[in-house]
Amino acid sequence: MAFSPLVDELVESLRCLPGVGQKTAQRMAFHLLEKGRTGGHRLAESLQSAMAGVRRCERCQNFSDTPVCGICENPKRGNGTICVVESPSDLLAIEQAGDYQGGYFVLMGHLSPIDGIGPADIGIECLMQRINDEDISELILATNPTVEGEATAHYIADRLDGRDVLITRLAHGIPVGGELGYVDGFTLTHAFRGRKPLSD
Amino acid sequence: MAFSPLVDELVESLRCLPGVGQKTAQRMAFHLLEKGRTGGHRLAESLQSAMAGVRRCERCQNFSDTPVCGICENPKRGNGTICVVESPSDLLAIEQAGDYQGGYFVLMGHLSPIDGIGPADIGIECLMQRINDEDISELILATNPTVEGEATAHYIADRLDGRDVLITRLAHGIPVGGELGYVDGFTLTHAFRGRKPLSD
Repeated sequence: MAFSPLVDELVESLRCLPGVGQKTAQRMAFHLLEKGRTGGHRLAESLQSAMAGVRRCERCQNFSDTPVCGICENPKRGNGTICVVESPSDLLAIEQAGDYQGGYFVLMGHLSPIDGIGPADIGIECLMQRINDEDISELILATNPTVEGEATAHYIADRLDGRDVLITRLAHGIPVGGELGYVDGFTLTHAFRGRKPLSD
Repeated sequence: MAFSPLVDELVESLRCLPGVGQKTAQRMAFHLLEKGRTGGHRLAESLQSAMAGVRRCERCQNFSDTPVCGICENPKRGNGTICVVESPSDLLAIEQAGDYQGGYFVLMGHLSPIDGIGPADIGIECLMQRINDEDISELILATNPTVEGEATAHYIADRLDGRDVLITRLAHGIPVGGELGYVDGFTLTHAFRGRKPLSD
């Protein structure tokens, strides 16, 4: 290699970022060295503190600096509803929509027997425990509409069979602002089956 | 924001990387927190040492851990030829081709009066000093074939007018393995003008 060991090591370690290959890592390293040393120092520090300080919330499994995260600690968010999502970014999308006011449970994955991921790995027992302990009236299964996401939702629903908890799934349909001509057949079928009287 | 201050700060500081916006930074932060803590620690450390330790080589301006870089210190690379490139990644591309055995001079940019970048900012005086001090027989101007790159090459050539240094520019032509039908007109014109007898 033509470069110094420090630059080589920087390029190599940048490749741990998702979607970053050799060329992109090189471009990032050169950019930081040429024009972004302040940003580089800041990134180093925030990486260090985040890697050391961020843990899982004891109640919802989301990332948190404290044993219990801000949403779980907020008394206004405890209205007896738990929304089950696969990942923190799903939670973030729901929070950014701004409408939902209940609590969350972040699975950090989905059931995937082929990869050896079972109920214990995504904290299903934790969730069951929470439904036992708290006065939960509704469980919204907001896992992704993929094969694994659907399987995970069905598994959770099966586990709660016979319990007095309303289990719901997010509605499928035409995205707001979407045009019918561009919507795929499955979504259209869902939208037809889920149609509502105009007065709603 | 729904997340902890540490995660927010990590997402914000990842945005200093080129081509990384809010969504990509989030994806990177979640990836590191979920699956890549070891990589994250390693990246933090290598960033810290690279930002603090990487300087410019005193002779060629390339990134280096030491006052003079490995290529400049290598006695086999001092054959009286200097190849002038715009950036370390250009140098890397030439090194990876593996054929060139002379020295380098890295401008770290190009002349661009509109951005206020003049000869002093890209170290032209350093280059002139080096041509005075060392026994340089050929200067290869390998700046990019852009308006600024060409202007930079012409400026350097003008400064050396009347001096006993052979000034060359990289050949333009059809890329090896390229098909004529896909080559643009300018490149084809260059290839025609630069044609060579078959015996060469």
